[in-house]
Amino acid sequence: MLRVAPAVVTLVVALLMAIELAAQTPHRARDLHVPFDGTPGQFNAITDVPGVTVGHTTLISGSGKLQRGVGPVRTGVTAILPRGADNPAPVFAGYFSQNGNGEMTGMAWVEESGFATSPIMITNTHSVGLVRDTVIKWQLAQADKAHRPMQPWSLPIVAETWDGFLNDINGFHVHEEHVLAALDNAKSGPVQEGAVGGGTGMICYGFKGGIGTSSRKLPDAAGGYTVGVLVQCNCGRRPQLLIAGVPVGKEIPGQVPYAMNASPTGQELGSIIIVVATDAPLVSQQLKRLTHRATLGLGRTGSVSGNGSGDLFLAFSTANEAAGGPGGSPVRELKMLTNDAMDPLFTATVEATEEAIVNAMVAADTMTGVDGHTAIGLPRAQLVEVLKKYNRLAP
Amino acid sequence: MLRVAPAVVTLVVALLMAIELAAQTPHRARDLHVPFDGTPGQFNAITDVPGVTVGHTTLISGSGKLQRGVGPVRTGVTAILPRGADNPAPVFAGYFSQNGNGEMTGMAWVEESGFATSPIMITNTHSVGLVRDTVIKWQLAQADKAHRPMQPWSLPIVAETWDGFLNDINGFHVHEEHVLAALDNAKSGPVQEGAVGGGTGMICYGFKGGIGTSSRKLPDAAGGYTVGVLVQCNCGRRPQLLIAGVPVGKEIPGQVPYAMNASPTGQELGSIIIVVATDAPLVSQQLKRLTHRATLGLGRTGSVSGNGSGDLFLAFSTANEAAGGPGGSPVRELKMLTNDAMDPLFTATVEATEEAIVNAMVAADTMTGVDGHTAIGLPRAQLVEVLKKYNRLAP
Amino acid sequence: MLRVAPAVVTLVVALLMAIELAAQTPHRARDLHVPFDGTPGQFNAITDVPGVTVGHTTLISGSGKLQRGVGPVRTGVTAILPRGADNPAPVFAGYFSQNGNGEMTGMAWVEESGFATSPIMITNTHSVGLVRDTVIKWQLAQADKAHRPMQPWSLPIVAETWDGFLNDINGFHVHEEHVLAALDNAKSGPVQEGAVGGGTGMICYGFKGGIGTSSRKLPDAAGGYTVGVLVQCNCGRRPQLLIAGVPVGKEIPGQVPYAMNASPTGQELGSIIIVVATDAPLVSQQLKRLTHRATLGLGRTGSVSGNGSGDLFLAFSTANEAAGGPGGSPVRELKMLTNDAMDPLFTATVEATEEAIVNAMVAADTMTGVDGHTAIGLPRAQLVEVLKKYNRLAP
Amino acid sequence: MLRVAPAVVTLVVALLMAIELAAQTPHRARDLHVPFDGTPGQFNAITDVPGVTVGHTTLISGSGKLQRGVGPVRTGVTAILPRGADNPAPVFAGYFSQNGNGEMTGMAWVEESGFATSPIMITNTHSVGLVRDTVIKWQLAQADKAHRPMQPWSLPIVAETWDGFLNDINGFHVHEEHVLAALDNAKSGPVQEGAVGGGTGMICYGFKGGIGTSSRKLPDAAGGYTVGVLVQCNCGRRPQLLIAGVPVGKEIPGQVPYAMNASPTGQELGSIIIVVATDAPLVSQQLKRLTHRATLGLGRTGSVSGNGSGDLFLAFSTANEAAGGPGGSPVRELKMLTNDAMDPLFTATVEATEEAIVNAMVAADTMTGVDGHTAIGLPRAQLVEVLKKYNRLAP
Repeated sequence: MLRVAPAVVTLVVALLMAIELAAQTPHRARDLHVPFDGTPGQFNAITDVPGVTVGHTTLISGSGKLQRGVGPVRTGVTAILPRGADNPAPVFAGYFSQNGNGEMTGMAWVEESGFATSPIMITNTHSVGLVRDTVIKWQLAQADKAHRPMQPWSLPIVAETWDGFLNDINGFHVHEEHVLAALDNAKSGPVQEGAVGGGTGMICYGFKGGIGTSSRKLPDAAGGYTVGVLVQCNCGRRPQLLIAGVPVGKEIPGQVPYAMNASPTGQELGSIIIVVATDAPLVSQQLKRLTHRATLGLGRTGSVSGNGSGDLFLAFSTANEAAGGPGGSPVRELKMLTNDAMDPLFTATVEATEEAIVNAMVAADTMTGVDGHTAIGLPRAQLVEVLKKYNRLAP
Repeated sequence: MLRVAPAVVTLVVALLMAIELAAQTPHRARDLHVPFDGTPGQFNAITDVPGVTVGHTTLISGSGKLQRGVGPVRTGVTAILPRGADNPAPVFAGYFSQNGNGEMTGMAWVEESGFATSPIMITNTHSVGLVRDTVIKWQLAQADKAHRPMQPWSLPIVAETWDGFLNDINGFHVHEEHVLAALDNAKSGPVQEGAVGGGTGMICYGFKGGIGTSSRKLPDAAGGYTVGVLVQCNCGRRPQLLIAGVPVGKEIPGQVPYAMNASPTGQELGSIIIVVATDAPLVSQQLKRLTHRATLGLGRTGSVSGNGSGDLFLAFSTANEAAGGPGGSPVRELKMLTNDAMDPLFTATVEATEEAIVNAMVAADTMTGVDGHTAIGLPRAQLVEVLKKYNRLAP
Repeated sequence: MLRVAPAVVTLVVALLMAIELAAQTPHRARDLHVPFDGTPGQFNAITDVPGVTVGHTTLISGSGKLQRGVGPVRTGVTAILPRGADNPAPVFAGYFSQNGNGEMTGMAWVEESGFATSPIMITNTHSVGLVRDTVIKWQLAQADKAHRPMQPWSLPIVAETWDGFLNDINGFHVHEEHVLAALDNAKSGPVQEGAVGGGTGMICYGFKGGIGTSSRKLPDAAGGYTVGVLVQCNCGRRPQLLIAGVPVGKEIPGQVPYAMNASPTGQELGSIIIVVATDAPLVSQQLKRLTHRATLGLGRTGSVSGNGSGDLFLAFSTANEAAGGPGGSPVRELKMLTNDAMDPLFTATVEATEEAIVNAMVAADTMTGVDGHTAIGLPRAQLVEVLKKYNRLAP
Repeated sequence: MLRVAPAVVTLVVALLMAIELAAQTPHRARDLHVPFDGTPGQFNAITDVPGVTVGHTTLISGSGKLQRGVGPVRTGVTAILPRGADNPAPVFAGYFSQNGNGEMTGMAWVEESGFATSPIMITNTHSVGLVRDTVIKWQLAQADKAHRPMQPWSLPIVAETWDGFLNDINGFHVHEEHVLAALDNAKSGPVQEGAVGGGTGMICYGFKGGIGTSSRKLPDAAGGYTVGVLVQCNCGRRPQLLIAGVPVGKEIPGQVPYAMNASPTGQELGSIIIVVATDAPLVSQQLKRLTHRATLGLGRTGSVSGNGSGDLFLAFSTANEAAGGPGGSPVRELKMLTNDAMDPLFTATVEATEEAIVNAMVAADTMTGVDGHTAIGLPRAQLVEVLKKYNRLAP
């Protein structure tokens, strides 16, 4: 089995970061004048929600014919830390399975307790277990480092989408060091998008997809809250794709990846994980309400949540830091937004979800993986032409 | 159609109250030395939770052969007002359907908003609609009376069990005035049990059943909270009945009502509605947790939640009066008990549910209704003998 | 209280049907060249699913100032009978609450049993109870007529949206005879749309809305099944409206009904009920899957499922007629489509939902109700112009 | 880190099997004359459902002071294969979280598809990930062996309870070979109980617990179906324990493990996984109904589902082998029991759950683990005495 040494990983990651940063400015949907409603936060990213950090480990190696356990490798892991690495205080959270052909571990406890108590990890389908147990090891190390007792048990949150069209998914190439690297590298500020982290080998509406993010900042009259969304987008079939309501998928029909046509029933083989973060003071049942709006944002991009698509959504709030967690008084003081005041958050969730999905495609370049399979990057110039044809180019 | 005039209803209610009060002391399970764990509140009733009021309208008229629309009538309606009649402030609430062969209107909004925003009504299966719309009329009248605007729309909470073995259920004998009477008569203090209110025609484990209630007061070290339970018990088959773990149903086998044996498959025709109230500061997802413990209390009495049994449970908290409701700041200050501190509330819910079910049977006397159908009252002296046989009589 | 005599109702209904039929051809979205994907069935209506019948009772009377109990009246009731009036065999069914600020009675039993066992009724929020109990009376009469025993109890399905902006909703103007008329008039073939039945007083994206319907016929290679959708559309705010991806709501901004602006928080006061029918052999959990796709169709029209919006969806299948129902063998023979073969049904549900919503608006004309409140009909010629502007007019 | 070599494991397993088999006769609850209702199958085990196989790997090594990564080790893994190792055909399945302080991976897909498509594994909380990914490796090997294509992705089912009181849970002592051994050793016939497999280090009502199983065979008039239950029992506090309704926990109060008293709030640190198998032809929503009856069986043993208890239940049916799975016709022929005929299955589930829990305790002997922590085995002779005191000894 090919073991990518940590040093190599670090190098690859560093290289990719450099390439990405160099290229980043023109590779977001807004830069192509795709029209979106609402006002994004500073980075137009989930990290606009104060405290949230994101880290990626990207694993790319090999080419040519698939050798199980050797490669080619096109995968990775993404970590979202609701309060950063050093603050394990639980966050209120809510969950929704729009189409459950996927995995998001830890949801029984999120649904029961109303809290998320671990980082939120996203990887490929067959590496969920490794990532899950490694999060526990990281939590042990964090507790040791901080000289505080580890909770007796941990139920980490790990989600996935399937990258087997480009990646040797049955080679189990995500290892402990990769998980730890994603956790340790997590930071606020701009978030890499496209073929990075858990999204490395993903395909979105028949174009190369992966990680995308976006945010909305509400006006002060609506509380001034921020809503940030991060998606690992691997869903959809080409003809379905709508961007800003325009039938882009039908207008750019060619070079659809094999995976989208291969199965006799022509099924979708993808999935989408959507993570919604906010600093609005919402409790768990209200955060579940946000996850139901992620579906509406997804709907705007044309998905029908195909049978094969694991469309699992999680929302959390960084407010009420003292609401959960051990010790202290058994009665906690909370703040809670009224349900009546949630409409602007719903709108922000729909808008940021739509934009994050488009960002995932706009950021990703063509990638070739297993057995020469290729997913083309969404041709950006052509996208602009199509939007123009439908009079939908933003000023 | 027989219309029971309000005056007659009032008279019947008054008479029944007098009879009941006269007889009340020896007709609760504890008075028969049935052993239960935990410490009840002052009235061992849901009304031990401060603010909660309960009202019944009991409709009993006619005898002999069933004439649809005429009688015999053995039915009624029970109202639980979480904060009494004059305080419409929502209460945090949670819902669970252990077996959904029943109706509890208003649950979509309880599940979505986390709040109950109406009185909680219990009646017979075929009168749910009349009760529901009448609650809206009552809310309109209450708003008019208080010179405050009515909310634009209302989604009242009405639950039911089936009394068609004793009652002319297809005669639709519950009328607006009966609903209003139950709401207007609601009060704190002792709660009538047995064949009263919505429970008038109900049958529980093959004995006459109906309304039962119980409560637990937690020690100060556990917060000093009260948990109150009210059941409308119409569930179970005789051989299943366990009281304090003793197989009472097998020990007292005879005179099982026709309904329990008639259907070819010998199915249960009953249901149970369980309402849990507390003053502990719980939010909606935590109250849903309490409803899951109602199942455990029900389980102790021997039910298997038969296919025909609508086992629907609702829990609410009277704390956090300012959490919901219109007007005021969009951000509310709450208190919330930690999940870690909930075990005593779980225990209290299990215990009070079990006791409320037994109370429903112990309070009810033999009743004859439609076509001479009879449900015998649980023979109290015999119950004591059976408990003695199994060394389970409390001191 | 104004009592609309049945004869008057019949007359009004007949008149409206005549007007509607005369006007029907140009008042559907396709006739305006709104582009939609997929192939509709013969009537492009839920009634394309063989066996399904639909009936409306439309109540329109009075004008001017609101007098509670008098009028103006702008309401009604719609009945969907999955197998027509004379076949009470249950249908497999699934339910989803996208946003539970609404009511759909009977859902506990649908979720538990997997079957719908009553007609599906849609009315205004405050008439749900009357409609519910009347369905039981109708079922009793149907059983009597057919000389078969009535089931011991019934848990009817009644949904609602709020029409209080145009209608005297607190006047409770829907009466038993109106419910019975909708049930008795239900038929296959073309379905009236717009301001009819339960949809009479509804407002959709700030335009007059109400009932809309659409269907899709799958190719033989996908099983040749039909999916039909009927909506009672009362949801959305004007600026949100997308038609075929085009921002129609922003392009036609004026004359927004008072209700959409009045509340301090500018909340939505609407809701949408979506009913999906199919003859594909799906079991209950698969029908729930269809309801999750209704959300995606709704999303395409721009909704964010505002806090005030009761977005409740129900799907049923007319296949497997012998699966439920009393008598016969305890083991039933079923056919079930594999999950792998469901993608075409998902696509059909998304498409037909989107088109039904647009049809509801296209069919409805301007209506004035309570206190002179007015909801303008979507200006059809202007819609065509807007679609042209965005190069989205179908050939 | 201590690596238990496979050979050692095999030896330990073989030894334990020998000891267990030798001792088995007197170590089941029925042999102690604990009274239970209903008629068990041949082995009174989940394996009475034809096709179901069970395998355990038991890991016991070291003693004395806890050294993370070294030991003492008191853990393992249990595999339940619904159709045995060589038949990967999906089984209809349903899931319920009675209290979600636990993990059962794969549930999103079970809930969505209605099928379980992997073995059902049970282990300790911190080994869930390793077990999960190893199941995929096993499935790959099985597909290779059978020369059939592997499904593109797998979403294995792995559940857990926490054994950190006796076991070095943060040492991650379950390895791939242990998982593979449990899968490869799975067989029909008698099932080892007590401190074996995933149950090795578990504690139940303050007594040594672990794996327990039981079954019920319905009379031919009720279809002749079998219901089998297997539990990994780690839940409850001593004073709660009821056996056959008798307050055994209060009667045998001493030597409560540290874990049950240590935390300031005196919380439960346990959990229970309940797996229900049947050959009755049930579809997924009906199997979910069975899981709700597992709660009632649990309730009879006294649990209140404490906050710390992950009470997760899964039910599956081995009927309808051709219902799922790839290839073949998109329309499958099924058999389905009517809901009306389910009561005997409900009763069987309640009874077998109760008995399986008691069997788990009766089978387990006293165990000492980490730091000398000890969980005493339920003193069998004393249990008999207590039952006798309450006149509850079966003939």
